[in-house]
Amino acid sequence: MATQRILDFLATRRPTGPCLVVDLDVVRDNFRAFEKALPDSKIYYAVKANPAPEILRLLATMGSSFDTASVAEVEMAMDAGAPAHRISFGNTIKKERDIARAYQLGIRLFAVDCVEEVEKIARVAPGARVFCRVLTDGEGAEWPLSRKFGCVPAMAVDVLRHAKSLGLDAYGVSFHVGSQQTDLNAWDRALGDAKKVFATLAEEGIVLKMVNMGGGFPTRYLRDVPVAQDYGQAIFSALRRHFGNAIPETIIEPGRGMVGNAGVIKSEVVLISKKADNDNVRWVFLDIGKFGGLAETMDEAIRYAITTAYDGTETAPCVLAGPTCDSADVMYEKTPYPLPLSLTIGDEVLIEGTGAYTTTYSAVAFNGFEPLRSYVI
Amino acid sequence: MATQRILDFLATRRPTGPCLVVDLDVVRDNFRAFEKALPDSKIYYAVKANPAPEILRLLATMGSSFDTASVAEVEMAMDAGAPAHRISFGNTIKKERDIARAYQLGIRLFAVDCVEEVEKIARVAPGARVFCRVLTDGEGAEWPLSRKFGCVPAMAVDVLRHAKSLGLDAYGVSFHVGSQQTDLNAWDRALGDAKKVFATLAEEGIVLKMVNMGGGFPTRYLRDVPVAQDYGQAIFSALRRHFGNAIPETIIEPGRGMVGNAGVIKSEVVLISKKADNDNVRWVFLDIGKFGGLAETMDEAIRYAITTAYDGTETAPCVLAGPTCDSADVMYEKTPYPLPLSLTIGDEVLIEGTGAYTTTYSAVAFNGFEPLRSYVI
Repeated sequence: MATQRILDFLATRRPTGPCLVVDLDVVRDNFRAFEKALPDSKIYYAVKANPAPEILRLLATMGSSFDTASVAEVEMAMDAGAPAHRISFGNTIKKERDIARAYQLGIRLFAVDCVEEVEKIARVAPGARVFCRVLTDGEGAEWPLSRKFGCVPAMAVDVLRHAKSLGLDAYGVSFHVGSQQTDLNAWDRALGDAKKVFATLAEEGIVLKMVNMGGGFPTRYLRDVPVAQDYGQAIFSALRRHFGNAIPETIIEPGRGMVGNAGVIKSEVVLISKKADNDNVRWVFLDIGKFGGLAETMDEAIRYAITTAYDGTETAPCVLAGPTCDSADVMYEKTPYPLPLSLTIGDEVLIEGTGAYTTTYSAVAFNGFEPLRSYVI
Repeated sequence: MATQRILDFLATRRPTGPCLVVDLDVVRDNFRAFEKALPDSKIYYAVKANPAPEILRLLATMGSSFDTASVAEVEMAMDAGAPAHRISFGNTIKKERDIARAYQLGIRLFAVDCVEEVEKIARVAPGARVFCRVLTDGEGAEWPLSRKFGCVPAMAVDVLRHAKSLGLDAYGVSFHVGSQQTDLNAWDRALGDAKKVFATLAEEGIVLKMVNMGGGFPTRYLRDVPVAQDYGQAIFSALRRHFGNAIPETIIEPGRGMVGNAGVIKSEVVLISKKADNDNVRWVFLDIGKFGGLAETMDEAIRYAITTAYDGTETAPCVLAGPTCDSADVMYEKTPYPLPLSLTIGDEVLIEGTGAYTTTYSAVAFNGFEPLRSYVI
């Protein structure tokens, strides 16, 4: 998936040390694909996926809105040129003083999943729009969301009713089907739940206006995934099925789906060795690992495609590990990774589809290694 | 475990946001306890545990040596006043150019666990001392080391023989019994393996001189752990048992045992909520989590002691989670954590025993949150 522009950059600039290279042309194509697939939805780019200023500026120029997780991310989006009305404070866990600060900056759209959070917002962001996140089962996602965010639909009704009673604008419902979601039916189940919240509150005269359908749009790692167009059709059918002719305003929050396939990490093989003469797997140590940007290999959840100069030649299974003195810094061990037998110490490898959730996950200085550098071209 | 000096600092300075406070008096006491417990061993502080310049300077002044994982850590130790002969490059995974750089800086002691690493060292660090790391089973450790580092003892013999044949000083054997190791017998088993490598090579006329007994010395989290004196006695008996009257030079590499109990993280409760009205656990969200410095809660491995202003009052089980929009950012869920029922949003909590493996693990800017700040007093 490395584009010619990325390959040319690496060949010409020859950066030393591990680094991420992101091709803005791919981000541009992804944004257009989302616009085309879901023409009636507003796109809120999930800044946390990759907050590089060049990416935020490109998307701001193209008309994207932004989903932010902190005041720092609100400010990054504004610095990139996004007006406050195109920014959502989408983290359900916020300090009251951070809500106040975001409100001062002009932010009027906030995520909640409990009455406690609603009360903070009512105190320091009077009249703001709130949407309540509903729990989904996350089935079919490679990086499931567990129960950390959201509440059951019945409780969402209480939360939004409470928001209304405190003078807030009970604006809608959100859900997240789980990151890297490849089951198109996941959105259908979640939209069914959302519709129930709409219907229950409508009976009390509270008219919700928006469904935030979150992210979860996958990027291609090793296996093929449905394309944006397929998601668009599945989501539109589900909206029609559950909401009939009264389809609400909708929002999507792609992060991985916007930038994942736009980036490639260049890494170097530091060591290849065995633990005993009769070992049948080799250990391959790269100069990047779990603490240098590949945190999503935790529990071997995300399996990146790795390309070498020897692709197509004979391979053998390898344990793949990072360069730190930490035994947890092993990427693939339970399911060893096939790599060419010709691979040698000092060789470069490309780790594909690493544009999202890499740079900012990287540790500040673990073992003295500097954080992952990134180039946006 | 928070000392009065730490409590006074927090009360007086009232730092905002999560932060680590380290009391140098505790580090000083720990160093002296190790010296007293193992008077014949050299202490190589594992810089990666906490590389704060104040800690390194104190230990350099007290005569400590340093175990480093990268060229950057070598330079930090030297900047703190440690001469090159008191620094070991203890990472078994090194780029050849980093070995060359360390050699230029005067480093002469290197870890290896395979012939490939020996060959790099022979090329760019002629005549250097090398010690070969041997695999241990890690049984009894709370943060086990798996098989990432070391080789089986039979292979260690080959590795050291190869080192000798390439003109290097085949200096010794190292092992690591696993971090936070509470089983005193673990050192005995590992020393038995080390002795076998000594004996086999002695038959060929290669006389090893040193055993690096690594780290693993625990810090107290929730459960009591043996004190340094107990480790000292157990290790000395094991040395005597295996090596008789020919006890070699020995090294220990405490990291967690040196600084773990010297530090306390101050954090704020951002939100307390439930997912449904009938939930029997509350979710407590702090302003620090797995990506902000508490990475060692991965798989709920390390269970920190948390103190609040309401200790001694009635508690109830809580899921404890961090502030980011990442569902993996949950510290304790499988085994919920008992916290006082009176605990309220906005309260401060202290996370004890967090002087090691926190600041440098913290992500550079995940979700826009800044890395963990630290104060060394």
